[in-house]
Amino acid sequence: MTLEAGIPLGVGFRVLSDGPGDSAARVAPEVTVGDYRDLDTLRAFARGCDVLTFDHEHVPAAHLRALEAEGVTLRPGAAALIHAQDKGVMRARLTELGIPCPRHRIVDGPEDVRRFAEADEGAAGWPVVLKTVRGGYDGKGVWVVRSAEAARATEDPFRAGVPVLAEELVDFTRELAAGVVRSPHGQAVAYPVVESVQVDGVCDTVIAPAPGLPEPLALHAQELALRVAKELDVTGHLAVELFETADGRLLVNELAMRPHNTGHWTQDGAVTSQFANHLRAVLDLPLGDPRPRAPWTVMTNVLGGDYPDLYPAFLHCMARDPGLKIHLYGKDVKPGRKVGHVTAFGADLDEVRERARHAADYLRGVIDE
Amino acid sequence: MTLEAGIPLGVGFRVLSDGPGDSAARVAPEVTVGDYRDLDTLRAFARGCDVLTFDHEHVPAAHLRALEAEGVTLRPGAAALIHAQDKGVMRARLTELGIPCPRHRIVDGPEDVRRFAEADEGAAGWPVVLKTVRGGYDGKGVWVVRSAEAARATEDPFRAGVPVLAEELVDFTRELAAGVVRSPHGQAVAYPVVESVQVDGVCDTVIAPAPGLPEPLALHAQELALRVAKELDVTGHLAVELFETADGRLLVNELAMRPHNTGHWTQDGAVTSQFANHLRAVLDLPLGDPRPRAPWTVMTNVLGGDYPDLYPAFLHCMARDPGLKIHLYGKDVKPGRKVGHVTAFGADLDEVRERARHAADYLRGVIDE
Repeated sequence: MTLEAGIPLGVGFRVLSDGPGDSAARVAPEVTVGDYRDLDTLRAFARGCDVLTFDHEHVPAAHLRALEAEGVTLRPGAAALIHAQDKGVMRARLTELGIPCPRHRIVDGPEDVRRFAEADEGAAGWPVVLKTVRGGYDGKGVWVVRSAEAARATEDPFRAGVPVLAEELVDFTRELAAGVVRSPHGQAVAYPVVESVQVDGVCDTVIAPAPGLPEPLALHAQELALRVAKELDVTGHLAVELFETADGRLLVNELAMRPHNTGHWTQDGAVTSQFANHLRAVLDLPLGDPRPRAPWTVMTNVLGGDYPDLYPAFLHCMARDPGLKIHLYGKDVKPGRKVGHVTAFGADLDEVRERARHAADYLRGVIDE
Repeated sequence: MTLEAGIPLGVGFRVLSDGPGDSAARVAPEVTVGDYRDLDTLRAFARGCDVLTFDHEHVPAAHLRALEAEGVTLRPGAAALIHAQDKGVMRARLTELGIPCPRHRIVDGPEDVRRFAEADEGAAGWPVVLKTVRGGYDGKGVWVVRSAEAARATEDPFRAGVPVLAEELVDFTRELAAGVVRSPHGQAVAYPVVESVQVDGVCDTVIAPAPGLPEPLALHAQELALRVAKELDVTGHLAVELFETADGRLLVNELAMRPHNTGHWTQDGAVTSQFANHLRAVLDLPLGDPRPRAPWTVMTNVLGGDYPDLYPAFLHCMARDPGLKIHLYGKDVKPGRKVGHVTAFGADLDEVRERARHAADYLRGVIDE
């Protein structure tokens, strides 16, 4: 999707890919197949690139620092990206900045989880959420522990050899996301704050703008995201995932420093997409207008389901709803895997939401009319 | 631009290109460099493609017929495409269908031009427009002859070894274009009729929808284009370029059977772009909604001008107008060459038009603020 946005900008791409089946590799004019965990592969790849950017945060932090020390331009830079790579570093830094987060602490074993829940000053209580500080995504690397007994039996998080972060389970009313884009010389734009509906720890639907969000709270979320982008010296797109609580507070859940699933709606719903603005930022070009083009835009992820071949369902959805925007990633379909998304926009939220829902369910095989 | 539209559809592309500097070759994952005038090159290229489509009409008609005879799927097919390749065939067929065209006749030399202007039944009068039936575009292969004396001195058109079509010079008030897309099983959609402003025989600006066009005339233009698409069995995008006369008539000027400059506004201005709908048609997928997304959309071509390097001007235009959509083609800049286009949209036509105009002029070096 970033390559797609780069075409009108005349940007030349080289993609470092896991393998030829990779989504980006299928559409890129120049592909290097290699392991992003290998420093020499990264070095060779970077040679001749003006700037390196990312579509995931799994490149080892030490490699990123090494590349920068050797003069490679990374955007975002290693010192910013570490906050999207390591939840421990992120929590410490945001807390230092006075940005509201769930109560949290690094814990070293089951007994320490119990202390975090029951004995610490301002103890978090049960349940407690445990997260490995690195390597988790889409609900992976996350455990919910509901009692001291359960904590005693909880060994998995401590086996990975990665520090474990304990957090209070926030009693949120919904999840929001604030997307901002910042360029190296400090220009920044903020997209409308969206509601992100999660199912089984995976983003299912994004509604732009977040329905019923009071204007002051929306502004607060945008300001918070712009401040994080500035303080952490982020370049490119930053998604700040937030919990909204019943008493009107916003707590930061996660950060992502790349085009993000909560911003996919911008492709069809904003004047400038997150992908185009990410590229503009990464290249230090002036940023584009982030405003919405329709009163409501709804994006729903398409997960792999019963159909190994999406084509017939795809055809049905196009015929049923000519205004629907379908984005397929060219991935092989596996159950539960994000293989694409659909976006609908219009003036009536219920109708727009139903159109996106219907198409995603049909493509997954949940409904067949 | 077609490749860009194909990414979300998951379409795999192979591009036959003149050379590695070609716009499409710069962004395509698979490029064959070869001569489209060579039948064996075309044969080898077609092997393994599900369907072949075109971004120009210069592939020799005989080669297209040969490929079809060998079982290659062309969309549009050779029998349709000939009407965009040969103005003589196009005029004969449209006249047979009763579709209004300028008075016209194939002429065999200067004296025959005089007869066409002065002696034929319903003589066209002076000036007369001469066009080679094949190979012309953007004002090339076109001559305006203003008198019998001038006709006697007009030898160039008759030197090319290609039949020459004489046409009356229509006293039009403006040029319009009706874009339609038709799929192999006969579904069709019509875009809003646009005004196409030509400068020196080259499309300069397109305004969507055509300002002040009476609704019945707009409908008439759309119906006419849909009828041409059906009667000629066009698949994919068809642009019908029209003359609007002071007495409210519409005469067909040219046909193009591919995504066309008069439809570039749809990328940013319509729910489904001409490129996406061309692909959907070519693949016999259900077509997308052609309706506009803003009250006014204006596209202005960027011609190569004083700046061999567009980058600094590009940066200025982005900074000045964050809502402007810039599309660069990755071509080397040569004076007068179309190197990109800019699109603006909004509620106020004068403002939208001025934004597009300003950016195109700035990129060309006509103004520098």
